[in-house]
Amino acid sequence: MHVLVTGAAGFVGQALVDRLLGDSPGTLRPVSRLTAVDQRFGNDAQAWAADRRVLLHEGDFGAPALLDAALAEPADLVFHLASVPGALAEREPALGTRVNLHGALVLFERLAAARTGLPGRVVFASSIAVYGELPFEQAMDESAVPRPALSYGAHKLMAEVQLADLSRRGGLDGLSLRMPGIVARPPSASGHGSAFMSDVIRRLHAGEACECPVSAQARCWWMSRRCCVDNLLHAAGVAPDRLPLSRVVQLPVIAATVGEVAQAAARVGGHAPRLRHRADPSLEALFGRMPQLHAPRARELGFRDDGSLEQLVVNALA
Amino acid sequence: MHVLVTGAAGFVGQALVDRLLGDSPGTLRPVSRLTAVDQRFGNDAQAWAADRRVLLHEGDFGAPALLDAALAEPADLVFHLASVPGALAEREPALGTRVNLHGALVLFERLAAARTGLPGRVVFASSIAVYGELPFEQAMDESAVPRPALSYGAHKLMAEVQLADLSRRGGLDGLSLRMPGIVARPPSASGHGSAFMSDVIRRLHAGEACECPVSAQARCWWMSRRCCVDNLLHAAGVAPDRLPLSRVVQLPVIAATVGEVAQAAARVGGHAPRLRHRADPSLEALFGRMPQLHAPRARELGFRDDGSLEQLVVNALA
Repeated sequence: MHVLVTGAAGFVGQALVDRLLGDSPGTLRPVSRLTAVDQRFGNDAQAWAADRRVLLHEGDFGAPALLDAALAEPADLVFHLASVPGALAEREPALGTRVNLHGALVLFERLAAARTGLPGRVVFASSIAVYGELPFEQAMDESAVPRPALSYGAHKLMAEVQLADLSRRGGLDGLSLRMPGIVARPPSASGHGSAFMSDVIRRLHAGEACECPVSAQARCWWMSRRCCVDNLLHAAGVAPDRLPLSRVVQLPVIAATVGEVAQAAARVGGHAPRLRHRADPSLEALFGRMPQLHAPRARELGFRDDGSLEQLVVNALA
Repeated sequence: MHVLVTGAAGFVGQALVDRLLGDSPGTLRPVSRLTAVDQRFGNDAQAWAADRRVLLHEGDFGAPALLDAALAEPADLVFHLASVPGALAEREPALGTRVNLHGALVLFERLAAARTGLPGRVVFASSIAVYGELPFEQAMDESAVPRPALSYGAHKLMAEVQLADLSRRGGLDGLSLRMPGIVARPPSASGHGSAFMSDVIRRLHAGEACECPVSAQARCWWMSRRCCVDNLLHAAGVAPDRLPLSRVVQLPVIAATVGEVAQAAARVGGHAPRLRHRADPSLEALFGRMPQLHAPRARELGFRDDGSLEQLVVNALA
């Protein structure tokens, strides 16, 4: 099977490619070919380059030449992870629009147009940013109306709609997963507003002090990279007739406060929690006012959260 | 004031331009300049061409050259009506995607980028096609979740999301009106699946027999062109701080069965109704299964339906 992964050098993409090239890529057929696309591959990609199955394509995701190269050989399965993170897209709207909106639309349209035989599954990493502000005190379920409050979420939502329409037409077989911020990212200037979520787990597990831009009562949605990759691989195999017409699945998540996760991280690490707060009202509003989430449809389809706070910490640091 | 109208040669566009150039364009400031854009202008546009205020730009709405010309002079107010009708867009997906999706996105992005002073109002003719299938037996309101069942509706929905995001960013001041099929269109091969709605009014009012592809019990949403133009002009003047963040308004409509409208049309015309049916299940499903609609938010903002079945007929034939 030939698999195409965009954003392959990213935090989630790296782990996904490693799993695809490893011995246990879920229930998928063996990967005979893997095309990895990203803006720039780091040293981590040298092991892939040595794998005869792997083709690396480096370049601007919004540029036609890169897509031409990446799509030269038809793929049986596509993971579209490439995107400009939310905070960066908000600071640089032209960049965000080019990559997150037009990049996704053109990719999907070209995949749909290129199909000759059976349509292949296209798994799209969408985001809970599609919702915008949610009522903190009320539990929500999978029928919540998306009202994006940032361009990042607006563009993800538009790409979801396009993927569903192309799936309905039969050109491809799409599935959008609405993903929360994934932990624990390495410390970096990645442009992710939710970087504090990773810092809390990493630092408190290591017994370090952590200064956090939201309150201990801030409730976020949590998922480890390991769990996220499990869900991405699972998405490749769900039968199309089980999917909703929207082709959207809101992944189950652990909804927990920063204080609860900090305590779990410290506990797993065998330390006392050392968490300080300097409130950033905009981050608190964006990431720290998440309601409880019921996702029975996603669970019925076999998607999973990390199971417990302790397992979240263990998975996040794996 | 300089007004830009795309789709100006269309059924709604013609009437809108006539009103804008006439003596009573609602509460708007006088129109000193009007730029009209369409694929091709017919003989009806000769009167406009003689008006020194009017600039006509003919060409493919998806082509950059046309947009360059149309946007050369900044407009204070934009009506974006140009679109490929739903049935035609479904038959020719590349055309629909180019005009209804990318044409709208590029127009909005260029308008947002071009603004120098205060953002101008951009009124977008969206469609009830964004909803897809609705529960026939339950009344719905303005919070219904859009689940488009045709590419036409998917593209309108995506353009709505983009317009809201650009409005939030401040580049323009957008408002999407979700419009029903507008009556009474002249008989034509326009590609509108809802053409039967116009035929019923026109023919029964004239005392002619009408063969209708849906049942007498088919419930549709109705609005006359006169009422539609009233709402478009009204949309130009609603203060931005009164609009929802989604920048979407579902126009109030008359929800009535084809049988009820046929009777009203015959009554106004002074004839007995002569309606036959040859059922087309796909048209019945798309246009004839509409629920009752409550639109209190739109009414609060001053948008209106035709008021009564008789007035609908009179307005539709005006």
